[in-house]
Amino acid sequence: MRTRTIGIAIGIATALLATATAFAAQNFPKAREFRIERGMPEQAIACIECHKQQTAGIFADWTMSRHASANITCLDCHQAQPGDLDISRDHEQYYSRGDMPYGEKRYFIPIASAVTPKDCSRCHPDEVKQYAKSKHANTIEIMWKLDPWLNGGMNSDNERKTGCYYCHGTVLKVTDGKLDSSTWPNVGVGRVNLDGSLGSCTSCHTRHRFSVMEARKPETCGQCHLGPDHPQIEIYNESKHGDIYQAFKQEYNWNSAPGAWTPGIDYRAPTCASCHMSGSGSVLTTHDVTERISWETQAPLTVRPQDFKPFPAQTDWKVERDKMKKICLQCHGKAWVEDFYVDFDTAVHEYNEVYFKPAKKMLDDLYAKGLLDKTKFFDEALEVEFYELWHHEGRRARMGAMMMAPDYAWWHGFYECKHRFNRFMEEARHLVDTNTKAYRYPDFPNATGDTTRPPEIFNKKQ
Amino acid sequence: MRTRTIGIAIGIATALLATATAFAAQNFPKAREFRIERGMPEQAIACIECHKQQTAGIFADWTMSRHASANITCLDCHQAQPGDLDISRDHEQYYSRGDMPYGEKRYFIPIASAVTPKDCSRCHPDEVKQYAKSKHANTIEIMWKLDPWLNGGMNSDNERKTGCYYCHGTVLKVTDGKLDSSTWPNVGVGRVNLDGSLGSCTSCHTRHRFSVMEARKPETCGQCHLGPDHPQIEIYNESKHGDIYQAFKQEYNWNSAPGAWTPGIDYRAPTCASCHMSGSGSVLTTHDVTERISWETQAPLTVRPQDFKPFPAQTDWKVERDKMKKICLQCHGKAWVEDFYVDFDTAVHEYNEVYFKPAKKMLDDLYAKGLLDKTKFFDEALEVEFYELWHHEGRRARMGAMMMAPDYAWWHGFYECKHRFNRFMEEARHLVDTNTKAYRYPDFPNATGDTTRPPEIFNKKQ
Amino acid sequence: MRTRTIGIAIGIATALLATATAFAAQNFPKAREFRIERGMPEQAIACIECHKQQTAGIFADWTMSRHASANITCLDCHQAQPGDLDISRDHEQYYSRGDMPYGEKRYFIPIASAVTPKDCSRCHPDEVKQYAKSKHANTIEIMWKLDPWLNGGMNSDNERKTGCYYCHGTVLKVTDGKLDSSTWPNVGVGRVNLDGSLGSCTSCHTRHRFSVMEARKPETCGQCHLGPDHPQIEIYNESKHGDIYQAFKQEYNWNSAPGAWTPGIDYRAPTCASCHMSGSGSVLTTHDVTERISWETQAPLTVRPQDFKPFPAQTDWKVERDKMKKICLQCHGKAWVEDFYVDFDTAVHEYNEVYFKPAKKMLDDLYAKGLLDKTKFFDEALEVEFYELWHHEGRRARMGAMMMAPDYAWWHGFYECKHRFNRFMEEARHLVDTNTKAYRYPDFPNATGDTTRPPEIFNKKQ
Repeated sequence: MRTRTIGIAIGIATALLATATAFAAQNFPKAREFRIERGMPEQAIACIECHKQQTAGIFADWTMSRHASANITCLDCHQAQPGDLDISRDHEQYYSRGDMPYGEKRYFIPIASAVTPKDCSRCHPDEVKQYAKSKHANTIEIMWKLDPWLNGGMNSDNERKTGCYYCHGTVLKVTDGKLDSSTWPNVGVGRVNLDGSLGSCTSCHTRHRFSVMEARKPETCGQCHLGPDHPQIEIYNESKHGDIYQAFKQEYNWNSAPGAWTPGIDYRAPTCASCHMSGSGSVLTTHDVTERISWETQAPLTVRPQDFKPFPAQTDWKVERDKMKKICLQCHGKAWVEDFYVDFDTAVHEYNEVYFKPAKKMLDDLYAKGLLDKTKFFDEALEVEFYELWHHEGRRARMGAMMMAPDYAWWHGFYECKHRFNRFMEEARHLVDTNTKAYRYPDFPNATGDTTRPPEIFNKKQ
Repeated sequence: MRTRTIGIAIGIATALLATATAFAAQNFPKAREFRIERGMPEQAIACIECHKQQTAGIFADWTMSRHASANITCLDCHQAQPGDLDISRDHEQYYSRGDMPYGEKRYFIPIASAVTPKDCSRCHPDEVKQYAKSKHANTIEIMWKLDPWLNGGMNSDNERKTGCYYCHGTVLKVTDGKLDSSTWPNVGVGRVNLDGSLGSCTSCHTRHRFSVMEARKPETCGQCHLGPDHPQIEIYNESKHGDIYQAFKQEYNWNSAPGAWTPGIDYRAPTCASCHMSGSGSVLTTHDVTERISWETQAPLTVRPQDFKPFPAQTDWKVERDKMKKICLQCHGKAWVEDFYVDFDTAVHEYNEVYFKPAKKMLDDLYAKGLLDKTKFFDEALEVEFYELWHHEGRRARMGAMMMAPDYAWWHGFYECKHRFNRFMEEARHLVDTNTKAYRYPDFPNATGDTTRPPEIFNKKQ
Repeated sequence: MRTRTIGIAIGIATALLATATAFAAQNFPKAREFRIERGMPEQAIACIECHKQQTAGIFADWTMSRHASANITCLDCHQAQPGDLDISRDHEQYYSRGDMPYGEKRYFIPIASAVTPKDCSRCHPDEVKQYAKSKHANTIEIMWKLDPWLNGGMNSDNERKTGCYYCHGTVLKVTDGKLDSSTWPNVGVGRVNLDGSLGSCTSCHTRHRFSVMEARKPETCGQCHLGPDHPQIEIYNESKHGDIYQAFKQEYNWNSAPGAWTPGIDYRAPTCASCHMSGSGSVLTTHDVTERISWETQAPLTVRPQDFKPFPAQTDWKVERDKMKKICLQCHGKAWVEDFYVDFDTAVHEYNEVYFKPAKKMLDDLYAKGLLDKTKFFDEALEVEFYELWHHEGRRARMGAMMMAPDYAWWHGFYECKHRFNRFMEEARHLVDTNTKAYRYPDFPNATGDTTRPPEIFNKKQ
C-alpha cells in the first residue's frame, strides 16, 4: 500500500497504546522477556534433519513460519511434559537404530503427539487464557447441555465423529498407551485434551505454519461457520464487507503484527477476525470470541450472553457492545453505528416475539395436551419443524441482520421463518382441533449414539 | 501479460473507435475539457488534514483512488449544493473551535452527507444519464408496482430495511433537519435521493476508493444478485466463464481504462461487467444494464424488455440482442453464438408454455371458483407454491440456461420446476375435485409493513 | 517459496523416479523423442497472422501457452485428419481471396473445428490412453445405463442440452456437412467425437491456453462437481484442505512440471487434482479418475468400483485404496490415514444398511403390491423421495464423510437422510396400511425427451 509508512507509524503507536492500556487494565506490570537464542540442542537438530528427509512438507511449512524465524524447534512444542499420557512409543523406537543417521539413543527425547493450548501457553499465555474462557473452548460442554441429538442418542457415533466433533472437538482418550483412534486425530475448537486444557490452536492456525494471516482470513472461520444453521461465511461473503474483501484482498497487508492490524491502513474492509478478535484502536486483541457480542443469536430465544444458561458470559453485554461499537467506529460514523444496532435489535425483538414465542407456546401446549410425545425429540414432524424454525431459518434471519447480508436476513431468514411458522401452526392446530396425537416415526434411523455426558467435563464441574 | 504492448495498441484503437462511433451515433460533437489543476482551496486542505487524523482509513482510501490522482478533493463531492436538504449540522460545529487546528470559521464549507448521482454527474455526465434510465435506478418503482410483500404489507418495515431495501434502496427523508435514520445510511442501487436523483454510485464503486476494478469483479454484482431468487453470482461462478475467472483472475489487467478493457488481451473470460456494461469492440460502455438484454427472465411470464409493463425498456429487443451478440463475438464464433440463443430461447419458451402458463391458469381458476382467496397473497399454501415456481426455481431455470450454468439450469431450475409444478397441480386439483376452500393461515406473522406507495416516486409520475 | 531449491531437487528426483517406475511397471522401455523445431510452414504463419488480427484473444491465449513455447501451431491440432467428417467449409472460402493477405490458395489447409482427444494423443498418448478408460470419458454410456430422466424421457431435449449434456457431453453429429448445432459446440467430459474418441481435453484445460495450472485448481472440477447431487467443490471448500488452499493459494507453485508437483513443497494443502490425478511420491500421474477410488459413493447402493455394473473398474479396489493411502501419507501420518478410512467405511456401511436398504426394500414392496406404478419414474411423490434419498442427501452424506467436510457429512447429509427416510417410510406405510395406490401426476411437464440410446455407443458395444 502507498500509505505503508503512515500505516507502520500508526501501527506501532497502536501497539504501544494497546500494551500500555493492557497493563493498566489488568494491573500487572511485568518486565518483558524476549530474546532469541540462535543455538539449539543436538536433539532438536536431529528432529529437523530427519524430518527434512522424511516429511519434507512439514519441514517446508516450518521454515516459512515465524516459529522458525524465532528459532522455535520441534522440541519446544512436542517435547513431552511431566505427566503427559500420550508419549509416542513408535517414535522412541527410531532411536535404537545406531546405524541410521541420528538413530542413536543420545538424540532421544520423549515426544507427545498432541500439542495442546497448555503447551502453547508457555510462550503465548495471554492468548490461551483468553481462549480458555471462550465459547469456542467450552463448546463440548455447551453442546451436551443443549443438544437433543447427543442427549437423546438420535444419531450414531460415526455421524457425530464425521460431523459434530469435527468442529466441536473430541474428548481425547488413551487406550493401551496410544491415543484412542475414535478420538484422535481431531482439531476441533473445543477438544478436551489429556492435560485438561481445552481446544486446539491448530484449528485456525494450521500446522506447521501457524500463520496469523490464515486466521485473519474469513475462509478459516468458514470451515465451521457455514451451512444451514450458522452460515456466517455465506453471510459475510454477501455483505459489503465481504464484497470489498473479495475485490481488494490481494492488497491487504495480512502479516501486520498481532494487535497492530489497522483498518483502512492494512486493509479496506474487515474480515471475521477484524471485528471479533483483532485489536483495533483502543480495543485490545482477544482470543475470547464471546467478547464484543451483545446477543446470543444462536440460542432458541435470543438472550444476552450473560443470560445464556448453558454458559453465561462473565461480562456485561453493554460493556461488550461498547467494545464492538468502538470497532465499528474505526471505519463508520456514529449515526451509522447507532442505526445499525437499531435494526439488529429490532430484528432480534421481532424474531423473539413474533416467531419464536408463539411457536414455543404452541409446542408446549401440544406436549401438555399429550398430542406430542416428549420421550424422544425429532421423531415427530412438528418437533423437526420447530427445531428448524429457530435453529435454521431463525438463526439465518438474526445473523443475516447482524452482519448486514440482506439475502440471508430476508430470503434465507425471515421469508423462510414466515412459511415455516405458518406450516407449523397449521399442523399444530389441526392436531388440537381434531385432538389427534402426532404420528411418531417408529424406526428412526441410526439413533444409536452414546448418551453419556463426558465425565472429563461434567464430573469435574460437580 | 506478455502481450501487453499489443493490448495497449488495440486498447487505444478501440477507445478511439469507440469515441468516434459514439460521436456519430449520438450526434453531438463536443470540445473536450479535461485538465487537472494542482492547487486546492484552504478549506479542502482543512478537510484532508483533519480527516487524515480522524478517519485515517478514509484518507488512505482516497489516496489510492483516481480521484486523488486527479486532485479531486472531499469538497468536490461533498460541498452542499443549492437547495440541499441534508446539510450536516454536526459538522458545522467543528468550525467554532478556533483552538483546534483548522477549527476556525474560515475553513467552513457546508457539507452534505449523502453524495448522489446528481453530484457525481458534474464530472461523469454520461454514466449518470445512462444509469438514470436503467432498471437499477428505478427498482423501487418497479418493486412497488409488482411486489405482494410490499403492497400487501406482508412483512415488517424492519424486515424490509434489513432485507429488500438494502439492495433496492430507500427513499431518503429528512426529519428535524437530519437524515431520517429509518432511511439512512443506505447504498441501495435505487435509492431515491433528496435531490430527486436515483441510486448510489457507491453501491458498486465503494467509497472512498471508487474503483473501476471493484465494479468489474463479479463479487460486486454478487452482493445483490445471489440467493434463491436471482442467483446470478452462483450461476456465473459455475459457468465456464466463472471457472476461467477463478483460475486466471490474478493475471487480469483490472485497471485498464474505462471503455478500453479488452477481452483476450486484458482478461481471459468475462465477468458480469464485461458482457453487461463494459465497452467491447464497437459496442460502447453503458451504465444502463437494461441494454443488451432480450428477455425479462425475472418476470413471471418471460417477456421482451419493451413489453415489461412495470418499466418498459425504451428500446427494441432485437437491437439489444444484436449488441450482446457483438459482445459474444469478441471471443466466440458465429455458430457458437447462434446456437447459444437457440438454447436460451427454447428454455424461455418451454418455461412459459409448459410450466408457467398452465400453473397460472390453474391459479386463476381457483380464484374464480372462490377456492383461493384474493384478499391477501402468501396466506394460502398454493400462493406460496405458485410464487416459488416462477420467482425461485423458474428464474433459476431461465437464468441458468441464459448464463450457461448446467447445475442451475437443471438441478436448481427445471428439475425443481417439475416437482413444484406437480405438487401445485395435485393440491389444486384436490381443491377443485372436492370443492374445498384452501386453508388460510389465520395468524400470518409480522405482516405489519407500511403499504403506502412512496409519493416521491408515484406522485411525481401522475 | 523459500524452499524452492529443495523443491526443484526433490521434484526432479520424483520425476526421474516416476519415470523409472513407469518403465518398470508398464514394461515398455522406449527411446524418447522430444525436440523443438523452430521453423513453421507458411500455412501455419498464415493462420497465426490472420487470427492475430481477427481473434486477438485466441492469439493472446496461445502466446501464453506452453504450446507456443514448444512451437506448436494452430495446424498441429486443427489440420484435418484422414476421414475427418467435420472439415470446415466456411474456413476454406477465405482462401479464394487473393486480394487479402494470406488469402491465396497456397495457404490453404483443411481444418477441423472439433479437436478431439485422438488429435491430442499425437503428442500426449499416455494422458489420452488413461482418460479413455475413465468414468469421465464414458459418462454418456453410464448415464444411459442408469438414468431414469433419459430412459423414461422425463425431461426435454433442451433441458438435457442446457443441463445434463453440458457436463456429460453430447454425441457429435454432422448434418449437411456441418456440425449439427444440437450437438455442437460442447465441451462435456464424455463427448462422443466423430472420430470415435471420447471426451474433450478442453473441459479442464480451456482453449487456447491449455494450462496445467487451471486443471490443478479446484474451481475447474467445480464446474461440474457441485450442487445438490455431487457437491464436491462445496465439500472441498469447507474442508481443512480447502481452507488452507484459500488462505495460501497465492503462494502455490501452480506451474510445476506435470508429475513433479510436490505437496509441502509446491503447495500446502492439496486440491482435487493433487489427490485424484497428480503424481505424488511413487504414485504416478493419471488422467483416469477412477484410479485411487475404493467406493462408488455416487451409486444408489455403495459398491466397490469393480462391482459398479454400468461400468466396472478394471482394477481391484484394494490396489486403488493403497494408491490413495500413499497420497495421503505424503502429508499425514499412518494413524491419521487409517483412522480416516475407518470413519469413511463406517459412513458408507451405515448409509447402505440403515438408510438405503430398508428404503429400497419398502419401494420394492410398494411396486410388488401394485401401490406404486412402474410405468414411469418420478411421477409419484415417493419415487422422487426415494431418488433424493440416495441421489441427493445420501451422496452428500457419503461424499462429505469422504472428503472430511462436517457440514456436508451431517447437516446436508445424514441429517437430511434421517428426515427424508422418516417421511418416506411414513407415507409408504400409509399406502400399505390403507392399501391405497399412490397419486400419479397426470400431466408431468415437459416429458418429451428422446429415449433412443445413442447408437454411436450402444451399437458399437453389441
